[in-house]
Amino acid sequence: MDYKVADLSLAAFGRKELTLAEHEMPGLMEMRRRYGASKPLAGARIAGSLHMTIQTGVLIETLVALGADVRWATCNIFSTQDHAAAAVVVGDGTAENPTGTPVFAWKGETLAEYWDEAEKVFRFKDADGNAIGPNMILDDGGDITLLVHQGTEFEKAGAVPSQDSTDNEEYKEVLRVLARSVANDPTYWTNIGAGIKGVTEETTTGVLRLYDRFKEGSLLFPAINVNDSVTKSKFDNKYGCRHSLIDGINRGTDVMIAGKTAVICGYGDVGKGSAESLRGQGARVIVTEIDPICALQAAMDGYEVKRLESVVDFADIFITTTGNFDIIRVEHFERMKHQAIVGNIGHFDNEIDMAGLAKIEGIVKDEIKPQVHQWIFPDGKKVIVLSEGRLLNLGNATGHPSFVMSNSFTNQVLAQIELFTKLEEYPIGVYVLPKHLDEEVARLHLDAIGVELTVLNQAQADYLGVPVEGPFKSDLYRY
Amino acid sequence: MDYKVADLSLAAFGRKELTLAEHEMPGLMEMRRRYGASKPLAGARIAGSLHMTIQTGVLIETLVALGADVRWATCNIFSTQDHAAAAVVVGDGTAENPTGTPVFAWKGETLAEYWDEAEKVFRFKDADGNAIGPNMILDDGGDITLLVHQGTEFEKAGAVPSQDSTDNEEYKEVLRVLARSVANDPTYWTNIGAGIKGVTEETTTGVLRLYDRFKEGSLLFPAINVNDSVTKSKFDNKYGCRHSLIDGINRGTDVMIAGKTAVICGYGDVGKGSAESLRGQGARVIVTEIDPICALQAAMDGYEVKRLESVVDFADIFITTTGNFDIIRVEHFERMKHQAIVGNIGHFDNEIDMAGLAKIEGIVKDEIKPQVHQWIFPDGKKVIVLSEGRLLNLGNATGHPSFVMSNSFTNQVLAQIELFTKLEEYPIGVYVLPKHLDEEVARLHLDAIGVELTVLNQAQADYLGVPVEGPFKSDLYRY
Amino acid sequence: MDYKVADLSLAAFGRKELTLAEHEMPGLMEMRRRYGASKPLAGARIAGSLHMTIQTGVLIETLVALGADVRWATCNIFSTQDHAAAAVVVGDGTAENPTGTPVFAWKGETLAEYWDEAEKVFRFKDADGNAIGPNMILDDGGDITLLVHQGTEFEKAGAVPSQDSTDNEEYKEVLRVLARSVANDPTYWTNIGAGIKGVTEETTTGVLRLYDRFKEGSLLFPAINVNDSVTKSKFDNKYGCRHSLIDGINRGTDVMIAGKTAVICGYGDVGKGSAESLRGQGARVIVTEIDPICALQAAMDGYEVKRLESVVDFADIFITTTGNFDIIRVEHFERMKHQAIVGNIGHFDNEIDMAGLAKIEGIVKDEIKPQVHQWIFPDGKKVIVLSEGRLLNLGNATGHPSFVMSNSFTNQVLAQIELFTKLEEYPIGVYVLPKHLDEEVARLHLDAIGVELTVLNQAQADYLGVPVEGPFKSDLYRY
Amino acid sequence: MDYKVADLSLAAFGRKELTLAEHEMPGLMEMRRRYGASKPLAGARIAGSLHMTIQTGVLIETLVALGADVRWATCNIFSTQDHAAAAVVVGDGTAENPTGTPVFAWKGETLAEYWDEAEKVFRFKDADGNAIGPNMILDDGGDITLLVHQGTEFEKAGAVPSQDSTDNEEYKEVLRVLARSVANDPTYWTNIGAGIKGVTEETTTGVLRLYDRFKEGSLLFPAINVNDSVTKSKFDNKYGCRHSLIDGINRGTDVMIAGKTAVICGYGDVGKGSAESLRGQGARVIVTEIDPICALQAAMDGYEVKRLESVVDFADIFITTTGNFDIIRVEHFERMKHQAIVGNIGHFDNEIDMAGLAKIEGIVKDEIKPQVHQWIFPDGKKVIVLSEGRLLNLGNATGHPSFVMSNSFTNQVLAQIELFTKLEEYPIGVYVLPKHLDEEVARLHLDAIGVELTVLNQAQADYLGVPVEGPFKSDLYRY
Repeated sequence: MDYKVADLSLAAFGRKELTLAEHEMPGLMEMRRRYGASKPLAGARIAGSLHMTIQTGVLIETLVALGADVRWATCNIFSTQDHAAAAVVVGDGTAENPTGTPVFAWKGETLAEYWDEAEKVFRFKDADGNAIGPNMILDDGGDITLLVHQGTEFEKAGAVPSQDSTDNEEYKEVLRVLARSVANDPTYWTNIGAGIKGVTEETTTGVLRLYDRFKEGSLLFPAINVNDSVTKSKFDNKYGCRHSLIDGINRGTDVMIAGKTAVICGYGDVGKGSAESLRGQGARVIVTEIDPICALQAAMDGYEVKRLESVVDFADIFITTTGNFDIIRVEHFERMKHQAIVGNIGHFDNEIDMAGLAKIEGIVKDEIKPQVHQWIFPDGKKVIVLSEGRLLNLGNATGHPSFVMSNSFTNQVLAQIELFTKLEEYPIGVYVLPKHLDEEVARLHLDAIGVELTVLNQAQADYLGVPVEGPFKSDLYRY
Repeated sequence: MDYKVADLSLAAFGRKELTLAEHEMPGLMEMRRRYGASKPLAGARIAGSLHMTIQTGVLIETLVALGADVRWATCNIFSTQDHAAAAVVVGDGTAENPTGTPVFAWKGETLAEYWDEAEKVFRFKDADGNAIGPNMILDDGGDITLLVHQGTEFEKAGAVPSQDSTDNEEYKEVLRVLARSVANDPTYWTNIGAGIKGVTEETTTGVLRLYDRFKEGSLLFPAINVNDSVTKSKFDNKYGCRHSLIDGINRGTDVMIAGKTAVICGYGDVGKGSAESLRGQGARVIVTEIDPICALQAAMDGYEVKRLESVVDFADIFITTTGNFDIIRVEHFERMKHQAIVGNIGHFDNEIDMAGLAKIEGIVKDEIKPQVHQWIFPDGKKVIVLSEGRLLNLGNATGHPSFVMSNSFTNQVLAQIELFTKLEEYPIGVYVLPKHLDEEVARLHLDAIGVELTVLNQAQADYLGVPVEGPFKSDLYRY
Repeated sequence: MDYKVADLSLAAFGRKELTLAEHEMPGLMEMRRRYGASKPLAGARIAGSLHMTIQTGVLIETLVALGADVRWATCNIFSTQDHAAAAVVVGDGTAENPTGTPVFAWKGETLAEYWDEAEKVFRFKDADGNAIGPNMILDDGGDITLLVHQGTEFEKAGAVPSQDSTDNEEYKEVLRVLARSVANDPTYWTNIGAGIKGVTEETTTGVLRLYDRFKEGSLLFPAINVNDSVTKSKFDNKYGCRHSLIDGINRGTDVMIAGKTAVICGYGDVGKGSAESLRGQGARVIVTEIDPICALQAAMDGYEVKRLESVVDFADIFITTTGNFDIIRVEHFERMKHQAIVGNIGHFDNEIDMAGLAKIEGIVKDEIKPQVHQWIFPDGKKVIVLSEGRLLNLGNATGHPSFVMSNSFTNQVLAQIELFTKLEEYPIGVYVLPKHLDEEVARLHLDAIGVELTVLNQAQADYLGVPVEGPFKSDLYRY
Repeated sequence: MDYKVADLSLAAFGRKELTLAEHEMPGLMEMRRRYGASKPLAGARIAGSLHMTIQTGVLIETLVALGADVRWATCNIFSTQDHAAAAVVVGDGTAENPTGTPVFAWKGETLAEYWDEAEKVFRFKDADGNAIGPNMILDDGGDITLLVHQGTEFEKAGAVPSQDSTDNEEYKEVLRVLARSVANDPTYWTNIGAGIKGVTEETTTGVLRLYDRFKEGSLLFPAINVNDSVTKSKFDNKYGCRHSLIDGINRGTDVMIAGKTAVICGYGDVGKGSAESLRGQGARVIVTEIDPICALQAAMDGYEVKRLESVVDFADIFITTTGNFDIIRVEHFERMKHQAIVGNIGHFDNEIDMAGLAKIEGIVKDEIKPQVHQWIFPDGKKVIVLSEGRLLNLGNATGHPSFVMSNSFTNQVLAQIELFTKLEEYPIGVYVLPKHLDEEVARLHLDAIGVELTVLNQAQADYLGVPVEGPFKSDLYRY
């Protein structure tokens, strides 16, 4: 079997953790119970790209249990849990999953390695052992979706641009990988794209790219936007970060949060969860916001709302949650207190101007331990940066906990089934999951935590104008 | 001047409270500052129906300051603050508002009085003193919108049905009032309807009626759904109720909330604010829900989620927030503890089966003080019901505070301007306010509470793909 | 029967409220059940001085049910609930309490009236109708204890000083009342003092006075310090104020607390409850403190801790909780924002420099409604002061709720029984209640709110070195 | 230099962490600034026994900076941080601390090793290199204090009992070590005891032992009870556990806390911090209590209070905080849900009946990772136990954070100075630190977190009857 992971000997420990996580992922396990026999994904060849963690391991094995053939890469060079990757490769020896799944991921890949491995998820074999492409994509951030679309475009244009055509280090690697495959087969990506029924995408960023492609007419296949399911965006972002923000800060710094002044940049769902997380530990929390509605929400929730410039001198902890870039800049770093802590739980590492920080004359970057660095200014002041500005909950802790990921990933599974089995209902476009499926995801997670759901009687349902079993809300409803 | 209020001598006290409230309603005051000179509502004759409180007084006087001619009734027989009504009738003697505004409302109207007064808001006079109808409606719950539509229908049908055609006590009054006006002028409502440019509606219920009329093709003029502005639904419902729920319970009962077990039926925005309100006072809060997504939210927020039947025996306080009916029924009342407290902050009084309660054999209703009754069961057990099952925050306290109503009402003013001045952009239909206006409402409330808003630079705005000045979010965004 | 109250016709309403309150005062009702038959207070003549509220009514009737003869005055000129006073005077017509209790209190007494009425609680009659003094005192703040001690001293000295000997308006009244009684009977107070077995005192202030007298050797009889029972100080102060602070602000101002910046002066138990109260409603809370330990606690609880001078310019709400004086001074008032709200929930009205405020040149005091005034500065700025600087939870709301007062007052009843029945164990001195009684008070309040108490087995009790039934903690323990 | 640690090569990393921690321990650093020159501990030979963590490293180096000669062992076989031990042994090469300090501790000692190393802290050398005992003890739990007292007793009795005289595995080791030293020198411990001026003790348990010895007349030297300083008990216990409980659960299990039902056994300071910690993360928290006062506090704070038996079937997380034993027993384990999580943050591992658990017929103990075990019942049910029932915040996380330990340890330093320099004021007995020192500890931690302390003016101080600079509270005050 082909795979590339750090250390297969970690598989036994990984399996133990997978078993524990299964209990915390009732949505995925219910998918297995419901669909394990009918195997709605039989015939699906899913190319997957998503942080290769224990939770993703449960997702992969659920897709396999539903009949899919799967190949997997990570979507982030740092986030792989090597024991999870190993366990998935080895499999659990059960009848449903006897041989494991090909995984191409390890913690600490280079950019070149990252794109080399990403490309490998497209190399399925049919029953006779012949090369064949995937017919489904499951993506997080859109990197493997990008490979198909860019490859197809370059093939149509007749050439892949040279690596010199870009200054972007990462895009150079994309061009390298595409050039290699096109050199080998000038219609490789065109054929791959033609074979794909659809993609389900996990993140805001990936979804934005899809909407852009759809608007410009270049989208090759339909897409389901999993990110905007309520049970994804409101849960993963808010409750997931409430859990994993302090976990990352604690593991990274062991610093007492109580009594500290913490600045949360952004009060979207991630910011809301982050602010609550730190307040729950006794911090004084200050919020920065650009959107007046979110700013007013923060104020109604009892937080000070200030510009970063007004508080950067005296705050102790700075966390970006915006999805934007250049939020914490050199001018801010220079004014921070000694031993201020800076981290990002928003999106890309450019929320913090890490490049600018590194360019300060005379600054020294000193590793305290992996993913925790102190940047020593010429005057001796030190600022602590977590995970080099990347997502601190993944870099310093273990990411979101299984229960919240079970919500996100059950959306993924339902979206894969939806696209794979009802393709005719989805002409090329970008869709959110129907509300009844969104509600179903939530419903699958209630028993595990002892929630009793009230059931409408028919008269009440009629009064509200909804079916007894839902869906219950209009599309305008904001939860 | 024509008006009908309880006691004009309360006007001085009312004016003092209006002045205090103006400070707490920065959105409305900014409307006056911006548009007081240009008077975009000059020529508007606004028929208004909305709880006649101090806050509504500030709204009315804002509409007047923007040039409108206004007549006002209440939308609820109990909620009028008599000193507010008096002050609005008397006016403040300033150049902008020298003579006051006709108001037809007092606390404790009968149903017959209610509909008699509602009808009077349509009786404007033109410059020559001739009768003329309104050209705009501002409604809360849709009662005066109903008069126009039903009147028009009956006129078209040639007859108003007899009062005997219905068992509904309230609808009998509607029929009585319509029959009287039609007898007087058989095209009265048809003419009124034809003269109206549009309606702005405050509530979920009123909005549902409008969507229904639009679907069935009977909507006579365009409508703006103010209820679903974020700055209305997320603020009025959640933060307003967080404030006014405990205020109503405290004024009604003086009971210690700490240590009590409280059941919140429903975890929409009203339920979310209500649960937070009681937890902030040290209650143990249990939530009931029908929607699995909201149920899961409640659990993630740390609340128990149970069926009412599972907890009715031991809980101390029961609050309905659902917008549905028959939530607390006789079977529940019978199992409650002695001196359990029951109230509604959701919508209509039928959330609690008050009719059923009254029919229990041998039960005695005993007034402790106005809006607070103990229902004495044959075995001596007493249950305390607030505001006779109507909205306890209005009946036992003073409703939502000014600041949150300033958000809701600034939406109303903007919606009135929008429809009155840009009618051509609004063919018959039901609309929400554009997001930039929603954001503007929020923005107008930030300075008053010391919020500093961060401003995007152009590069950041481009990165996000939004204008520097907003709007910032997609329509899918849930806040 | 002798009494002096506002309006006896309020007795029926008062009785209804007393009945409701009894349910919320399980500690007192258990006292009646346990001791109603044995009547340990038979023979006790209790002179009482404590806010004449509904809760105090339940206390008085409990003392009577335990066999005591009681006479009652208020300890505050504003805090009397007239319907409570009326109901207690009338009694409930039961066998235990057929004729009611003499009460001398109404809302809004003058200082002269206050001291005239206070003196009347000493005028008991014996079985033959002859004048006789009390043998027990139950005091709040020490005013009637003061009468006995000062009267005795002046009698020993041979003369009561003239009213001109003091500038203090209130002390002039004390001297007037004492002079009158001494004129009538030169050993009146000496005899009264000799007849008294002991006093139980409710407040910090009263307790301090007692400790001072004991130290200087002038204490005439033993005293029990009820204030420092855990079930008084930790509950009344913290949880009581958490409830009644926002109740007072809401009833007084109807202002939205969410989003406002509130300053809590002092972070003792009252301050802790107050801060939690406002945060629970969405305020940003800032604390001021003099004690570094309490200041550090506030910071650990997530509050900003600043000097008043640093925040007085921008805060919206100011609440004093210190027990000290001159906390909010003219220099602060002058820097406050327009419509800032100022109130006191600490102790005396001198926490706020009301006298200084009134002396500002050109300032106007304007009553919005009773207990709510706006002070209009010469430049038009208005500051709102609640309850004229007196306790806002009593002046603007109804004081602490019954449940928390049941804790305080059960301590009072136990202390009265203790002193009256075990006098020999209490030589002159100031005592706190033994811990097992403190625990008993708590225990009596658990069932009503559904608390299940765990019981030690003998091995566990031995391990801890405590009896199975308690007391459980050392005297150092801080709860 | 003599020492015994795991790995000296960890010293560089340990030094980096020590430097970071110094910034978070402003109290200790202020001790160095104030007393670094005067060296009040010059001449002190301190035998120390306390968890050998980074924070303790800062304590040790502070004692050294104040002039003391120090030798150190751990008080717990699992809690040593090996990099901290290494760094302390190596020292930092500064003038004040050129050569490091002897440490005898590593993670994972056997009981035999533990007592062997504990004994070594007594082996000082004088200037001439001759053996000499310590003159001060700094203890946590009282183990090295026990060696001196038991050794002295056995020497007086003429013999150390045989190891066979006890079934207690740990006490066998104590007897072995004592027998060895007495064999070598029959007055060894008697001489040691005679040379010791006093002990400062950190924990409740150790303090109880000291009070017991004092009562029975066997205490050999005066003791300061550091545990009952407010800045120790209220901060370390409450705020420390609020931080480290979820940190331990997160690192141990990665399980989502939100939505789970957690049972906190005990609502003392540790329980209060623990309950707040879990609620802040969205758990439903249930409390068990034996003390009615603490139970009522829990209810007032909004928690359900139940017996363990009532909730053991459905709760997900169980945490003991009691200081008692046999709280969670086999009968409870047997009724728990699959994958329930059990941990202890109270005191000894016997809060959970680990011995009973191990004896269940057919049970299997399976290590998931160090300090995390699943106990597999014969029916396949698994229960997860953290840190084998020992303190999970030390075993699964890194213990309390530096800032809170700075409070505790500054008390230790002040207590060492107090006893060493003012011995004449402390006849044999057990003392708490004077309140002014307790306040001083708090004061030293305010600047670091931006707290502004208000200062009384003289009139205010006189009004309160306290000095302007404190102390501010009576001994009865509970904070």
